[in-house]
Amino acid sequence: MPGRHFLQIPGPTNTPLPVLSAIARPTIDHRGPEFGQIGADVLARIRPVFGTEQPVVIYPASGTGAWEAALVNTLSPGDGVLMYETGWFARLWSDLATRLGLKPEVMAGDWRSPVDPIHIEARLREDRDGQIKAVCVVHNETSTGVLSDIAALRRAIDAAGHPALLMVDTISSLGSTSYLHDEWGVDVTVAGSQKGLMLPPGLSFNAISSKARAASETAGLPRAFWCWNQMLEANARGFFPYTPSTNLLQGLKVALDMLEAEGLQTVFARHKRAAAAVRAAVAHWGFETQCQDAAHHSPSLTAVRLPEGHSADGLRQTILQASNMSLGNGLGPLADRVFRIGHLGDFNDPSVIASVAGVEMGLRAAAIPHQSGGVDAALTTLA
Amino acid sequence: MPGRHFLQIPGPTNTPLPVLSAIARPTIDHRGPEFGQIGADVLARIRPVFGTEQPVVIYPASGTGAWEAALVNTLSPGDGVLMYETGWFARLWSDLATRLGLKPEVMAGDWRSPVDPIHIEARLREDRDGQIKAVCVVHNETSTGVLSDIAALRRAIDAAGHPALLMVDTISSLGSTSYLHDEWGVDVTVAGSQKGLMLPPGLSFNAISSKARAASETAGLPRAFWCWNQMLEANARGFFPYTPSTNLLQGLKVALDMLEAEGLQTVFARHKRAAAAVRAAVAHWGFETQCQDAAHHSPSLTAVRLPEGHSADGLRQTILQASNMSLGNGLGPLADRVFRIGHLGDFNDPSVIASVAGVEMGLRAAAIPHQSGGVDAALTTLA
Amino acid sequence: MPGRHFLQIPGPTNTPLPVLSAIARPTIDHRGPEFGQIGADVLARIRPVFGTEQPVVIYPASGTGAWEAALVNTLSPGDGVLMYETGWFARLWSDLATRLGLKPEVMAGDWRSPVDPIHIEARLREDRDGQIKAVCVVHNETSTGVLSDIAALRRAIDAAGHPALLMVDTISSLGSTSYLHDEWGVDVTVAGSQKGLMLPPGLSFNAISSKARAASETAGLPRAFWCWNQMLEANARGFFPYTPSTNLLQGLKVALDMLEAEGLQTVFARHKRAAAAVRAAVAHWGFETQCQDAAHHSPSLTAVRLPEGHSADGLRQTILQASNMSLGNGLGPLADRVFRIGHLGDFNDPSVIASVAGVEMGLRAAAIPHQSGGVDAALTTLA
Amino acid sequence: MPGRHFLQIPGPTNTPLPVLSAIARPTIDHRGPEFGQIGADVLARIRPVFGTEQPVVIYPASGTGAWEAALVNTLSPGDGVLMYETGWFARLWSDLATRLGLKPEVMAGDWRSPVDPIHIEARLREDRDGQIKAVCVVHNETSTGVLSDIAALRRAIDAAGHPALLMVDTISSLGSTSYLHDEWGVDVTVAGSQKGLMLPPGLSFNAISSKARAASETAGLPRAFWCWNQMLEANARGFFPYTPSTNLLQGLKVALDMLEAEGLQTVFARHKRAAAAVRAAVAHWGFETQCQDAAHHSPSLTAVRLPEGHSADGLRQTILQASNMSLGNGLGPLADRVFRIGHLGDFNDPSVIASVAGVEMGLRAAAIPHQSGGVDAALTTLA
Repeated sequence: MPGRHFLQIPGPTNTPLPVLSAIARPTIDHRGPEFGQIGADVLARIRPVFGTEQPVVIYPASGTGAWEAALVNTLSPGDGVLMYETGWFARLWSDLATRLGLKPEVMAGDWRSPVDPIHIEARLREDRDGQIKAVCVVHNETSTGVLSDIAALRRAIDAAGHPALLMVDTISSLGSTSYLHDEWGVDVTVAGSQKGLMLPPGLSFNAISSKARAASETAGLPRAFWCWNQMLEANARGFFPYTPSTNLLQGLKVALDMLEAEGLQTVFARHKRAAAAVRAAVAHWGFETQCQDAAHHSPSLTAVRLPEGHSADGLRQTILQASNMSLGNGLGPLADRVFRIGHLGDFNDPSVIASVAGVEMGLRAAAIPHQSGGVDAALTTLA
Repeated sequence: MPGRHFLQIPGPTNTPLPVLSAIARPTIDHRGPEFGQIGADVLARIRPVFGTEQPVVIYPASGTGAWEAALVNTLSPGDGVLMYETGWFARLWSDLATRLGLKPEVMAGDWRSPVDPIHIEARLREDRDGQIKAVCVVHNETSTGVLSDIAALRRAIDAAGHPALLMVDTISSLGSTSYLHDEWGVDVTVAGSQKGLMLPPGLSFNAISSKARAASETAGLPRAFWCWNQMLEANARGFFPYTPSTNLLQGLKVALDMLEAEGLQTVFARHKRAAAAVRAAVAHWGFETQCQDAAHHSPSLTAVRLPEGHSADGLRQTILQASNMSLGNGLGPLADRVFRIGHLGDFNDPSVIASVAGVEMGLRAAAIPHQSGGVDAALTTLA
Repeated sequence: MPGRHFLQIPGPTNTPLPVLSAIARPTIDHRGPEFGQIGADVLARIRPVFGTEQPVVIYPASGTGAWEAALVNTLSPGDGVLMYETGWFARLWSDLATRLGLKPEVMAGDWRSPVDPIHIEARLREDRDGQIKAVCVVHNETSTGVLSDIAALRRAIDAAGHPALLMVDTISSLGSTSYLHDEWGVDVTVAGSQKGLMLPPGLSFNAISSKARAASETAGLPRAFWCWNQMLEANARGFFPYTPSTNLLQGLKVALDMLEAEGLQTVFARHKRAAAAVRAAVAHWGFETQCQDAAHHSPSLTAVRLPEGHSADGLRQTILQASNMSLGNGLGPLADRVFRIGHLGDFNDPSVIASVAGVEMGLRAAAIPHQSGGVDAALTTLA
Repeated sequence: MPGRHFLQIPGPTNTPLPVLSAIARPTIDHRGPEFGQIGADVLARIRPVFGTEQPVVIYPASGTGAWEAALVNTLSPGDGVLMYETGWFARLWSDLATRLGLKPEVMAGDWRSPVDPIHIEARLREDRDGQIKAVCVVHNETSTGVLSDIAALRRAIDAAGHPALLMVDTISSLGSTSYLHDEWGVDVTVAGSQKGLMLPPGLSFNAISSKARAASETAGLPRAFWCWNQMLEANARGFFPYTPSTNLLQGLKVALDMLEAEGLQTVFARHKRAAAAVRAAVAHWGFETQCQDAAHHSPSLTAVRLPEGHSADGLRQTILQASNMSLGNGLGPLADRVFRIGHLGDFNDPSVIASVAGVEMGLRAAAIPHQSGGVDAALTTLA
């Protein structure tokens, strides 16, 4: 197919060519001095992206691994974990917790709203004997396009006076919107390389508070590959306890250069602006977004609900073939009802418009009733 | 600047990543067996793109060199050459002819229309003593976006019964629109790598008729680097008489793979469709195209005239900064009055819309009066 | 530093440029049809490299993860595991088993010899009540350059009539020497991408026997990221249960193309030949190899013992600076006493000689007594 | 074929990966601000490599074009040119001069020695009426491996008091050995990208003295593509009069970075040292070099004469197949008698030894009588 592929799923994102080029440099000795410098450099410079001055460990594994790492380093078999089902990924994380031998208590969400701090506070107040060892939420629910308020959640936990650890999945928000691990008192932040960090998948992250590190000293779940202690010891010299993903780390160095050159606040504003433009198009077409709460629209992606009787997967296939553009599918109960437009990572105004145009052309080709002019609405929003 | 650069000048064009990747393969021995195969392969497979079964020589030089090659291989000092000034590039070619010691007779054009075969026929009829040795025209005038009718010109020359060679510059048309070197009786076709062939600049071409080859035997202009004979002898075995641009030729192989995979007719239809969409936007905005003849709009680019008092270069600068998009400038007398949108080479529907959107956002930002909704018009045209 | 870097550590190895180029292709949708084809392709074509017709799972994680996966999928807390300390990596694997809550019983080796099947057989005969659930060994001990005989080990286990699972780490042997998962009755084979498979680090593998799969149904260790079942279900359609390392998988496809084009037996013969050449040089210099058993020299690397009083790390540093060549360090008790020359993955005769020459020039520069002429000895062996 | 290809022809040379990577960056607008900066940068930084503070023009054409450019910009039809046939390339240059309508007078050389300044001085003294307008020599004769003394030639011309322009081809010496355009009073220096500058072929250069520029004002040969004036005018702003080889210029920027980082004098010393090592091997094998004058051995390549009755091309083919290594062929009368080992551009000690080893293994495989141990001799020379 001619022309550039538009990878508009909500991650993996379009990797910038300089990052791909860095990844394609010859592999170097992961125990040699050149690598030690790269390791130390990225371990230091990744911290501000998490809003932390505390350590961030980097796994040579994709994001699901960092979910597992957060839990096995801090918890013991049978521990209670309070989770909130904002959508598919929150559900998957709780499934994973169950499989690891934890006891997740999942607060049901409607998959259209953010985490509700009030309910969490209430539940924590009830937990007088401290069965709940951790509260785990997804910052930006990639299946629904809803962004939760972590600062508010922190206040709720504090208000309840509960000692539970706070763990947050930022897989599709990190690097795309403001995130303040330290200020919000997050204990473990989970992230991956393939979204706002603009890398291919293959790296994942845990940012770790001192409280989380203390918890790891008594946590009873077995762990080896994910063990923070070994990581942190080796990281102190810029190295890793076992073979790291050297080439992706070379790419991360360049991705951090790019984020720093643009400036994190500028990056975040760019995402916010693109999100507003895409939502303007969706509204113009006459569709609902999956997110029902105007204050909590995701800056990284927009999940769009098609009218009953129309196939979101059919639409995506039409768009892939006609416009060489990939969009995200509906997950779990949203399968075929919802499609998702990614607007995160490396993009600019024309590529946002191209994404919206790809969708509008697809709607027309698939004969899905809509009000034409969504592209124009997006354009007006950007201007 | 974040996001992908949109190189929407009318050449060099956006090189597909597989072509860039082929160019970045290690250089190989230009006298070794592996190169011999690549050489023979591209020399054979380039012919159908020119619509010829006759030889095409490939210079390790950019397109201006192929202009020079066409002339020095076939003509003698003082020879008359009939040229037609469709625009800036036709003018440059006649300047080059003058500097080489030829006597170009330039028929004035209005820079908004194609070559006029009737006038050429009339002039050739007058040339009873055969002062005119060649007729040289530009197929697609890159400065104005006007496509001339070479078949009609051939008929005109034939009607005049004139023996002049016919030489055609296809630098911005080859690979983007149907071109039939053999069927149209062209004697020398001039082309470059950086437009429809989707390569970086650095290669240029002469497709050569047997009449042109015969002319080269008596042509008196000195030549060495450009000499066809040496080329054709070495080419017979897949090699070159001096060091070729090995890496660009590796890229050409992949570019030909891509053109063949899509199919030339499909490629041409894609260009035509994009051109119509861009023109629909321009018309909607309320601007004139530089081309005034609806039957001769270029499939590769659209030159847009801004209303008096507005700076096309200022607009281009605004768009470059805001949208990371390069557009072509107005050349010669069109400087700052005209800007040019390239829609050739490797693109698809969303990138065409992105180009139009980049312009419309720029018009708004630069406060140039226009009717908004051009993107929508383009979209409708594509659908 | 001018010239190409010679990465002569025993892995990661020199990644061929076509593989690096494949990794640098734009990331694609890991749920789209194009990826599904790549996934299915590499999952099928990786099997012959393991000598198996049974499933191989591919983790988006480096090799240590595949050690963990082998254990957590098949064993329960407190299970006995018989391991054999052939060197540093065997030791690390047993450490990892301990941390996962298993009870490894480690048979001491001298770090200069292969696994001893006789001792293992004897120990298994004693284990009348079946405390030992698995025998875990390293096929090619990367710290010492000793290759163990897995077929003999299989016979020993069978002779003892013991039901323990057989798990084998082939991280530095797979793709470099013949390995027959099915024929040797291995239950879990552990491998990584960055050695004989010629990729950067970041992928790891478990080849799984039906006996191992059956064991996984009752195995009590918690697992989620490493869970085979989820993997195998998704793999059936060419997909993965969570985001795979898409770009490394694109590279794996090309690496498999290269291995198939050369032919596995030819690849193995090339490694054997290079190993013999390097050992000839070492012997000529007057040094011992760490491997003391002539029948068990590694095809992938040679660990060289320096005479007392000379620093192997100093030598490596000299060579890195003078020859832009990385060699492997001595690990654990071998630190600074031993250095390791990698000869695995993508190499040819001249690069083998270059490696040996880099060492010989380093010996001279570091004034370490040796008989010069090792390069010549290597050359003679190759001829 | 496994392993890295060793491109040991005397150019094109092994392009460093960062240079290839720069060439593979997306093509940019050759009239835009980003390109203007690159253009100005490389035009300034290339000068020290030529040892000049005067302008250097860069053609989007391979080296033969720069030969032509030197002549057509400075000379008139029928002008006498004194040339000296040091070998094949000197002969080709004189052929080219003839084809351009000049009258080259070629002093015969023995193809084993440098330019003889004494004969040239004598000839110039005879030329009382100034028929000779230029003296043209090849600095480093790529077909023979002989380096001529340009400073001595300058002194000879001065001693003769002759006004002829001095033109020097440095295609295979520039960037590999000291060259002082200004100090040696050279009028036009001709160079190419694909040797010491470590780029693929496709760029070529003329460094121009003020005397040469003055000559260009009255020179009568027709010229357009090669015209210095147009180039120099556009170059003043970092641009070019027609489409330049944008991607190769991006590569040139990186190549200059690398030369500057290593330091030109260090680069030259590295070449000299490699040349001595290769010659030590050749002498040890018992072969003659084509260069018979010990003071004039080329730093960039060594041409080796095989004993009568042995085929140099057969040997090269053997080495290509067995060692994935390309060597240069014998040219013209040296065909099949001589092979050439390139040691220029981007290399280090191990790659020099690899080259020598490839040859020695080939000699053995081809059963060409020689004393083994050449690699060891090279190693000793390097140490």
